[in-house]
Amino acid sequence: METMIQSNSSKVPLYEEVAGKVSHLIEEGTFGPGSRIPSVRALSRQLSVSINTVMEAYGLLEDRRLIEARPQSGYYVLARRGNIPAEPSMSTVRSLPTKVSIKELSSMIMRDMRDRSLVPLGAAIPNPEHLPIDRLNRMLSTEARRYREQSVSYESPPGCEKLRVQVARRLVYAGCTLTPDQIVTTCGCMEAVNLALLATCRPGDTVAIESPSYYNFLQALELYGLKALEIPTHPRDGMSIDALRYALEHNRISACLAVTNFSNPLGCLMPDDRKKELVELLSSHQVPLIEDDLNGDLSFSPERPRVAKSYDKDGSVLLCSSFSKTLAPGYRVGWIAPGRYQSEIERLKGVITIADATPPQLAIAEFLANGGYDHHLRSLRRIHARQTMQMAQAVGRYFPEGTRISNPAGGFVLWVEFPSYVDSLVLYEQALKAGITIAPGPAFSPRQKYQNCIRLNAGYWSEEVERAIQTLGELAAAMK
Amino acid sequence: METMIQSNSSKVPLYEEVAGKVSHLIEEGTFGPGSRIPSVRALSRQLSVSINTVMEAYGLLEDRRLIEARPQSGYYVLARRGNIPAEPSMSTVRSLPTKVSIKELSSMIMRDMRDRSLVPLGAAIPNPEHLPIDRLNRMLSTEARRYREQSVSYESPPGCEKLRVQVARRLVYAGCTLTPDQIVTTCGCMEAVNLALLATCRPGDTVAIESPSYYNFLQALELYGLKALEIPTHPRDGMSIDALRYALEHNRISACLAVTNFSNPLGCLMPDDRKKELVELLSSHQVPLIEDDLNGDLSFSPERPRVAKSYDKDGSVLLCSSFSKTLAPGYRVGWIAPGRYQSEIERLKGVITIADATPPQLAIAEFLANGGYDHHLRSLRRIHARQTMQMAQAVGRYFPEGTRISNPAGGFVLWVEFPSYVDSLVLYEQALKAGITIAPGPAFSPRQKYQNCIRLNAGYWSEEVERAIQTLGELAAAMK
Repeated sequence: METMIQSNSSKVPLYEEVAGKVSHLIEEGTFGPGSRIPSVRALSRQLSVSINTVMEAYGLLEDRRLIEARPQSGYYVLARRGNIPAEPSMSTVRSLPTKVSIKELSSMIMRDMRDRSLVPLGAAIPNPEHLPIDRLNRMLSTEARRYREQSVSYESPPGCEKLRVQVARRLVYAGCTLTPDQIVTTCGCMEAVNLALLATCRPGDTVAIESPSYYNFLQALELYGLKALEIPTHPRDGMSIDALRYALEHNRISACLAVTNFSNPLGCLMPDDRKKELVELLSSHQVPLIEDDLNGDLSFSPERPRVAKSYDKDGSVLLCSSFSKTLAPGYRVGWIAPGRYQSEIERLKGVITIADATPPQLAIAEFLANGGYDHHLRSLRRIHARQTMQMAQAVGRYFPEGTRISNPAGGFVLWVEFPSYVDSLVLYEQALKAGITIAPGPAFSPRQKYQNCIRLNAGYWSEEVERAIQTLGELAAAMK
Repeated sequence: METMIQSNSSKVPLYEEVAGKVSHLIEEGTFGPGSRIPSVRALSRQLSVSINTVMEAYGLLEDRRLIEARPQSGYYVLARRGNIPAEPSMSTVRSLPTKVSIKELSSMIMRDMRDRSLVPLGAAIPNPEHLPIDRLNRMLSTEARRYREQSVSYESPPGCEKLRVQVARRLVYAGCTLTPDQIVTTCGCMEAVNLALLATCRPGDTVAIESPSYYNFLQALELYGLKALEIPTHPRDGMSIDALRYALEHNRISACLAVTNFSNPLGCLMPDDRKKELVELLSSHQVPLIEDDLNGDLSFSPERPRVAKSYDKDGSVLLCSSFSKTLAPGYRVGWIAPGRYQSEIERLKGVITIADATPPQLAIAEFLANGGYDHHLRSLRRIHARQTMQMAQAVGRYFPEGTRISNPAGGFVLWVEFPSYVDSLVLYEQALKAGITIAPGPAFSPRQKYQNCIRLNAGYWSEEVERAIQTLGELAAAMK
């Protein structure tokens, strides 16, 4: 353990540094699956850090499901980890802007959403069984009655005030102090991202994006005649700041679009200090950041990560989110905190959809105020953490040797990298015939890279889903 | 009356021909306000047409509020007509495509919508008092409970099937036979128009529009980098087919956008034969028609006018509408029947907003099926006909001499043309200070024409509204 005592000069919190070191020792096999790691007291002495710091570090490793505490005994490396394939490596991409063209792929995924007979591993949809349907629907009724005239009337931009108040309050937990007037409601997070692109870019402009990146982002770029510049992205830490810096120095970039917390499809969580660096870097180049925090409330650990917007000093971060992954996709309640683009976003919202449906906005506002949202989130996050783990284990069990899989710290999607002989588009077709829908890798890249990757929705888990994973594994193995 | 017996060779129905002749005599003063016109029997004899034809003709003139039937007495020219100023003349516009720029004006109108202390004569919003709020809200509750899981889930394109079935059924009354699969739900009519523009045009393209035209259409054109080509439009009959033909022969036009029934802001109703001509003309030039039928259900006469889409033979008409003017603006339930653009519209819808809020779609579908929609429409149309008349009379009473006003046959907006000395932008500012919001004319033209015009929302009528009209008249007169 002596090598661990070496100091370093990075700006990450001390406990993260400690966690990183222990995690490194586990990954390199110093502490194998099932083995006991140093006690809190022992490590505190060895590293000359406080007991608290080690406790926090171990807490983080528990959240990441690397270790577990056993009562009266100590901390152990999770045996289960052995079943789960390694993470994919950092994406490598040529640094040239490209025109996007993935229309058919995303239409396929969207179309499959409507077919309830398919095992739904394609689109990132939460399982309604885990959503507070009855409480929401009750609030839909009571609020529509309480705000009788308002419930049928236009809530023109910036949208329902009651909702904006609640969103502003919740944003405190993500590190932001915003007033309700700095928020505009939208028809889901996707409309928010569309508005942000329209407010910051002109046709022909270039947008820096993660690689891989959500297929609907790529489609939106294509729709508005924008070029995508893919930035290498680490499956755990997110977009590479160095690569982005290089890209900014060598390209004319109009906006950067990133999912900073539990990204789609990688599930990566950008550490706070890197978020700060990201905001400062972009700001110094006068490039706005379109931040998608759709999954920010879905951390597997108790702590809600900050948003990059919390480091925004000049209003150049447009923060987008919704309640589609946490409460009700079908309510279409989203929002954007557009910084200095506020009036332009309000205007654009008025042009495209004028307003959002009022009753769902009122219901979600009431749920946030009095529905026990935090309690619901705790339960939902536990379910997702468990299901994501179960699905990852099943992938380890059934998918061909050499398969890699992401190790997300939140959200509910998994990114699978097959050995290179697997063609995910062929797999998609074969899976569909077997009654299973998946999201093929090429949908997540403007150049249709990731031919041997798929994204899996871990919102559902059942024996049927496990059998589907087995089937996918067999289909993939047969391609060798 | 003998001149009336001359036959003619036009293709309009006989009863319309008869109505036109009587109307001409009234307008020319042959039958002054309050005077009795020939009995049905007498006119039938004089014109050698059937009793039924004359009955239909008189019915039409009643709908147009030119005459009224008095029990046991006969038909009389409406005395009130004398108070109402003449219609504006046909718009004249230079036939050159122009870039649109009316951002601030439309933002002003939108912003005023939120201020409930203003007398709402600006935006075209229906008075919630006339909407079936309680029945809708009840259905919102029952349907969300009945379709429990569905109510919180994505209804990805083409959208809620129950709603599409009902819309397809209603379309029969507008002359269309469409299946539910030929309809895509949208977030209000405005999203439908946005999708239609995106599906049919590329940046730099030219779109033929009515003049004056709804400000949000102009903003959408600007947003997508499209040029507007204004086509002269008659305040009663709509877009001039001859002018459009000339425009098609001398410009490269990518789409034509028109409100065929009770247009915004003129309130004009394009006669059926002209709709047919419009569709055939555009089709022969391979130019799609984006038809906005937002007000189609709001005719002052009992008959629902056809849509141009009913003459569509090659799928080149994209019909857009919503229930925002008839049931609940705040429910944001709209739709598009996109013809041969179906799959492209579904894809675009998925990119921009993914889906619409499910509970309002379910509630509206249930209202259409079992809520007494036709009964509600009858009452709503009567109210709008009365209020539109009352507001027109008030304009006649209070506005300066030389003012002209549209004579719509449906919807609930009035287009007012002041003498040229009135600057509607100045009037807008002065009115706002007096607690009244109006829509200034230049918002309805890409070249900010119609400097001396305003649009009035007749969705509201009360003593307060009448006083507001008086105030507007005084402010306008003071500009002389």
